[in-house]
Amino acid sequence: MGDHYEVSEKGAGALAIPSLRWEEPPEGPVLVLLDQTRLPAEEVELVCTDVPALVQAIRTLAVRGAPLLGIAGAYGVALAAARGFDVEEAVEALSQARPTAVNLAYGVRRAAAAYRAAAADGAGAQAAAAALAEARAVHAEDIEASTRMAEHGLALLGELLPGGGHRILTHCNTGALVSGGEGTALAVALAAHRAGELRRLWVDETRPLLQGARLTAYEASRAGMAYTVLSDGAAGSLFAGGEVDAVLIGADRIAADGSVANKVGSYPLAVLARYHHVPFVVVAPTSTVDLDTAEGADIEVEQRPAQEVTEFSLPSAQGAGAGPGAGIPVAPLGAQAYNPAFDVTPPELVTAIVTEAGVVSPVTSERLAEVCSTSRWSKSRSGNGMMAE
Amino acid sequence: MGDHYEVSEKGAGALAIPSLRWEEPPEGPVLVLLDQTRLPAEEVELVCTDVPALVQAIRTLAVRGAPLLGIAGAYGVALAAARGFDVEEAVEALSQARPTAVNLAYGVRRAAAAYRAAAADGAGAQAAAAALAEARAVHAEDIEASTRMAEHGLALLGELLPGGGHRILTHCNTGALVSGGEGTALAVALAAHRAGELRRLWVDETRPLLQGARLTAYEASRAGMAYTVLSDGAAGSLFAGGEVDAVLIGADRIAADGSVANKVGSYPLAVLARYHHVPFVVVAPTSTVDLDTAEGADIEVEQRPAQEVTEFSLPSAQGAGAGPGAGIPVAPLGAQAYNPAFDVTPPELVTAIVTEAGVVSPVTSERLAEVCSTSRWSKSRSGNGMMAE
Repeated sequence: MGDHYEVSEKGAGALAIPSLRWEEPPEGPVLVLLDQTRLPAEEVELVCTDVPALVQAIRTLAVRGAPLLGIAGAYGVALAAARGFDVEEAVEALSQARPTAVNLAYGVRRAAAAYRAAAADGAGAQAAAAALAEARAVHAEDIEASTRMAEHGLALLGELLPGGGHRILTHCNTGALVSGGEGTALAVALAAHRAGELRRLWVDETRPLLQGARLTAYEASRAGMAYTVLSDGAAGSLFAGGEVDAVLIGADRIAADGSVANKVGSYPLAVLARYHHVPFVVVAPTSTVDLDTAEGADIEVEQRPAQEVTEFSLPSAQGAGAGPGAGIPVAPLGAQAYNPAFDVTPPELVTAIVTEAGVVSPVTSERLAEVCSTSRWSKSRSGNGMMAE
Repeated sequence: MGDHYEVSEKGAGALAIPSLRWEEPPEGPVLVLLDQTRLPAEEVELVCTDVPALVQAIRTLAVRGAPLLGIAGAYGVALAAARGFDVEEAVEALSQARPTAVNLAYGVRRAAAAYRAAAADGAGAQAAAAALAEARAVHAEDIEASTRMAEHGLALLGELLPGGGHRILTHCNTGALVSGGEGTALAVALAAHRAGELRRLWVDETRPLLQGARLTAYEASRAGMAYTVLSDGAAGSLFAGGEVDAVLIGADRIAADGSVANKVGSYPLAVLARYHHVPFVVVAPTSTVDLDTAEGADIEVEQRPAQEVTEFSLPSAQGAGAGPGAGIPVAPLGAQAYNPAFDVTPPELVTAIVTEAGVVSPVTSERLAEVCSTSRWSKSRSGNGMMAE
């Protein structure tokens, strides 16, 4: 069950409201999410008391972004365990809520493994505590990873663009709203801003759901960054005019060959960046790398409802309760739409992948595997048989 | 002064409502426009009884599209003359209503020249009749040009894509709504459809004002074409998946070197098309070619209000009366936006320019000048000193 609560405005500055938090009794156990479908019009929290509510929140993008989905998935398992629901059922429902973001399955898998190991040994309460501890660990690691990515990314920008005064183009939302910390690509831009090195953040509005205009602009505004929103198609003019020094994006899944699945519209930027000799940099934790997916063609790309394109949904009328069909038509009745959530950029178009464990550049499967193997997550990725699931 | 009238639904099939028509007394003289800001939600006619109303309709995009702007501009001069307003004032206001589309200035110039020539000889009524006759001539030539472009374009598709079953990607709206006839790029797609050669029309929604989702989909639906709408950023996936056989777009101004100014988002398609070895074809009458503009960098690109990006305007709430600010915010309050109406594609990325006078391919300034010189419009373009204005 999901409930909505209004949240008071906390003022500008750093993001005052965490994108996700776990509440213990007496309020909990519940998982509290900032409902991202309502931003920037309203800051409303969505309280998930069970896994179906969380699955719904994931599907409607009330909670979204690869790293945050991993954290949410882990807490979801902990929530089912804490409330005495069927944990295996919860694991299955959460894992399948969205197909492309590998972090979701990763977070679910880690909490589930911790739960099962403890359940094999003893009482349910201990198993629930183990699941929660693991979810907290996933959360803490993500915060730490965010900090490391920002450091590595800022250093990389300094190498790629020694002149400073970066004009960075980004797509979708990759900041504090997608992370326990400050995010992925936007964390790097924020680090550049703090270092006095960010001249301009170009924010692709990111159709169809406008995560750039709604969410990245919201975060950039709060952080006091110099930012400008644009239609996705207007990025071409910026490249042609020499107004973009680097592209920074996140990732929803990175295959073993370095192919990057990210929000639809990323691939055209990669092609534009190549055509204009501009660095195209992907920022993602190693938990986003899926070494079991050999190459880009193997990545399943989620197809989303046509209505996201053919109708306009008011930010304030969305939310977990409002499904497709609640919007204002912008195309003729019955119009078909092609609406993939993601596209895939091949490694040859990616200048660098910045992870918490280091920078992969040039992007080769060998170097990617090497960086992943030095990550603290490498054990949980493949060292304990969980991949057999 | 502009008034709105509801128009009854004429049913599917060919476009039942002309995008523009001149009404004689007793209803007129007035220029009646189909208000394109209200499509596809409502078919409403906008009746312009003076030039300020027409200028407002041009600025708010109630009437839009390069060829149609030429016709509207010519009729605007005729309207001022017929109603006894200051014609030179009207010429100036109309010419400056939008800076990029050369056809607007071209249509205004032709009607003004006819008016002046007749005014020098005799009475005002004769001069007004001359302006109207010239506007009708511009209108008729556009209808004829549309037919010729469709023929040339269909033949070119047959050469470029001998297998048939074309899957064509288009951007913005270039059909009957922008023309006295069936338009430019969309007229070619429509010809392919009638010839049984169109497998799929991919319709870029065309942010920020959604002319693709709203207008091209409306026309494609009425014509019974197999069409699919997509977010502009999703075109990359289609190219990567080999789902696009050719790109067909219109143009708002073509410089002497073959650089093409067209709706923002066209240039990224040109870069994607080149990267994927897909033909990128521009369809435009020779009246869109401005031989006085040497190259792409010389084309003035209209910057439009930020609110077109930072707010969502309801199709039914727009119209000549509703300016920026009437929309629903999608970005944080105070967000800046970069909102060029057009971008410029250099000739080396254009496979062919299809005009009514023939096909320019490869696109060179010599071949472009040659085709323009064979056009019936070549005289009125530069043969009578009007360019000195």
